Amino acid sequence: MNAPLPTASLPRVEPRPLPPAMTDALRQRFGERCSTAQAVREQHGRDESPFDVRPPDLVVFCESTDEVAAVVRLASEHAVPVIPYGAGSSLEGHLLAVQGGVSLDLSRMKRVLRVNAEDLTVTVEAGVTRMQLNEEIRHTGLFFPIDPGADASLGGMSATRASGTNAVRYGTMRENVLGLTVVTASGEVIHTGTRARKSSAGYDLTRLFVGSEGTLGVMTEITLRLYPQPEALSAAVCHFPSIAAAVATTIQIIQMGVPIARCELLDANAVRAVNRHDKLTLRESPMLLMEFHGSTASVKEQAEIVQEIAREQGGEDFEWATTPEERTRLWTARHHAYFAGLQMKPGSRTVTTDTCVPISRLADCLLDTVAEVEATGLPYYIVGHVGDGNFHVAYLIDPHKPEERDTAERLNQQLVQRALRLEGTCTGEHGIGLHKMGFLVDEAGAGAVEMMRTLKRALDPKNILNPGKIFTL
Amino acid sequence: MNAPLPTASLPRVEPRPLPPAMTDALRQRFGERCSTAQAVREQHGRDESPFDVRPPDLVVFCESTDEVAAVVRLASEHAVPVIPYGAGSSLEGHLLAVQGGVSLDLSRMKRVLRVNAEDLTVTVEAGVTRMQLNEEIRHTGLFFPIDPGADASLGGMSATRASGTNAVRYGTMRENVLGLTVVTASGEVIHTGTRARKSSAGYDLTRLFVGSEGTLGVMTEITLRLYPQPEALSAAVCHFPSIAAAVATTIQIIQMGVPIARCELLDANAVRAVNRHDKLTLRESPMLLMEFHGSTASVKEQAEIVQEIAREQGGEDFEWATTPEERTRLWTARHHAYFAGLQMKPGSRTVTTDTCVPISRLADCLLDTVAEVEATGLPYYIVGHVGDGNFHVAYLIDPHKPEERDTAERLNQQLVQRALRLEGTCTGEHGIGLHKMGFLVDEAGAGAVEMMRTLKRALDPKNILNPGKIFTL
Repeated sequence: MNAPLPTASLPRVEPRPLPPAMTDALRQRFGERCSTAQAVREQHGRDESPFDVRPPDLVVFCESTDEVAAVVRLASEHAVPVIPYGAGSSLEGHLLAVQGGVSLDLSRMKRVLRVNAEDLTVTVEAGVTRMQLNEEIRHTGLFFPIDPGADASLGGMSATRASGTNAVRYGTMRENVLGLTVVTASGEVIHTGTRARKSSAGYDLTRLFVGSEGTLGVMTEITLRLYPQPEALSAAVCHFPSIAAAVATTIQIIQMGVPIARCELLDANAVRAVNRHDKLTLRESPMLLMEFHGSTASVKEQAEIVQEIAREQGGEDFEWATTPEERTRLWTARHHAYFAGLQMKPGSRTVTTDTCVPISRLADCLLDTVAEVEATGLPYYIVGHVGDGNFHVAYLIDPHKPEERDTAERLNQQLVQRALRLEGTCTGEHGIGLHKMGFLVDEAGAGAVEMMRTLKRALDPKNILNPGKIFTL
Repeated sequence: MNAPLPTASLPRVEPRPLPPAMTDALRQRFGERCSTAQAVREQHGRDESPFDVRPPDLVVFCESTDEVAAVVRLASEHAVPVIPYGAGSSLEGHLLAVQGGVSLDLSRMKRVLRVNAEDLTVTVEAGVTRMQLNEEIRHTGLFFPIDPGADASLGGMSATRASGTNAVRYGTMRENVLGLTVVTASGEVIHTGTRARKSSAGYDLTRLFVGSEGTLGVMTEITLRLYPQPEALSAAVCHFPSIAAAVATTIQIIQMGVPIARCELLDANAVRAVNRHDKLTLRESPMLLMEFHGSTASVKEQAEIVQEIAREQGGEDFEWATTPEERTRLWTARHHAYFAGLQMKPGSRTVTTDTCVPISRLADCLLDTVAEVEATGLPYYIVGHVGDGNFHVAYLIDPHKPEERDTAERLNQQLVQRALRLEGTCTGEHGIGLHKMGFLVDEAGAGAVEMMRTLKRALDPKNILNPGKIFTL
């Protein structure tokens, strides 16, 4: 867990105490599944962001769409904020009860409701995590590819339009959610989308909810696309003399249309961190961690093309991992980068960036960013879904040294402005939450953000759904 | 052109005459690019749907986003409907001025503004057609795959969330629009999305506009994803003893995850029609027309798998077309199916269905539909993007025989209800327009449609943007 960042700077709307009538009604309906215990409230008032805890007034553990609807109807009646909670792995303060209210815990909605293997679709409750899903559908020969690292809930992943390491080939939650069951701000239950692969039937409500960070409705059931487990699957690491060389390799892979499944950059600092944390002996230089999916012949062909490109860029020590054990070891290390990084500077916390730029701008964006952070002397590491043009700089700061926080925030500002100049986005996959509201205006423009506010006001006139996130009203 | 269907049954809002102050202002600004000539108005008051013409009061030919904004500001001031017009190839009555107003012709906004080949993106004005785009970017080695048959404008394709023959591999407009310039109902210009491949920055306004049929804003510029022209490209036809066998083959291809680029069904009637129209000698039995994209090795591998599957299902006369000329001949014939079909029954018009179902339900949906139409004796043909579960039955009716129209409408009703029971959609790619408003409610439910209305009211409070389409307010 990251050490906390003060939230004093956040826009402040004084929480009102929960109306006793609402608390009573919830207690009556939910009994022990309704908690005001401090430990439970505090656990639900934080996430993996660097913000300090902002506990809700009460936590309700829901087990069905009907229960969610009942809670939201009460919240609407009493004009009380409701904050959907999945696995708690959000990175942008999405779960903090900045205006008080009820945390609506969906983690017990864990049923895989329907696997339609022959259609490559599955319908799950919002609390199912991606690992649980893949475990439960393993026997079908299918898998759900979106992998943000954390074992996030599929509701949370939908709410933040998450992606991660496989998006370069399989897309993001935007492309892989087919339909939703949603509880609206008035507590009504609606369904969006169908199980058909495509549709032109009216407004795309599914994609309006995907990425809405719990501010437009509570997603309770999600229909997802699945993919056949590839016949062949192979991972490789390749080391490079410089970040520039690794990035140039990536750019060429994408431009040539190689259907690479994963293409991850770790800078030398990140490699060093995972070496220590996972007891590996990877060469501590910029590294690409790649994965290829397809038929045996296609994987071989992809690998040959990529090896040639990498060699031309000075790539060395191409190392293959074809057994599941070897692959797991490498990807586990990648997924540990965040925690491994924190251990590089004991007691530190992380300020993580999330810019994403058009692939041709990636080298410019990344190299200037490295130069800037190097000049400050602040410890950092970089990991990136570089096949998408998305990378994360993690600045390691001492929470007791405000000047380090200021430096990290200044670097983040500079990086975001650079990404926007390069026609990219301030957030590739983490969302806006509490932290990037200003960046959203810089990126989308005041007019587009005002349109978002208009949509919010129309669908949630009492501003009870995760209020204070994405923008202030 | 289809013979017209009476629109008497449409919900009627009496058009008000255009306020003279508005006409004057438009004439002053646009001069000869502002027309009230009857021929021009009539041309803009129809599309390829079977509805009869409903001309707008005036047509303005815009040449820039600023001009569009100026027209919409005037329309807002005078509360006059505005109907964006691209290539006129819509199939659901989208372009009919059912409440009068101004047709905003974007067909002169034909500039390809920016090709960023190294990022696989392009930005075009809304009037650029898909064929023009592919012609203009040919030298880059890239192409834009979405192909709805007609040479539609990219604005229109975005507005209807179009797809077509390549969607099984490359997705639809939903997946391939990265960003938009939009004129809002108040005449403000906003930008949505960036050139980054993914983003979690706030509400997905891009996808809210894609498929909104001109009712939420006027798209004037569109940033699209492009793809490298495949190294190898091969098309094949295969004939089957029955539609069931052709569909069974398709289902297996999709379930095995073969990355087929196109997989089109033509029933025996459709083959007969294109044989006559295009002077071909294809065997007149159910046929799959397929295309494979990839590396030489991958195309070969895909083709082998597909041939084996087809053979198991009784597929015969597998015939390859690897030269561009042969491929063009086959695909041109496919694209002529609509006009070829009309010629099967001189003086007829077409009522076309557009259901899309989960792939495992395709055989059920299609075979029951064939049995029903066969029982009526009405001439028909079927073409389908069956790899997506999407097919079109074209009922050929005599416009002078109301009983034939009634039969076709009843068959369409039955088909849509069947598709909805099978968890599909009433429209895979044509949109709701005027014709499917009732189906939309059946499919999405009253609550979801009411949410769409709420969004419409919020973004277009005066109901001036293509009013009367998708739903009535």
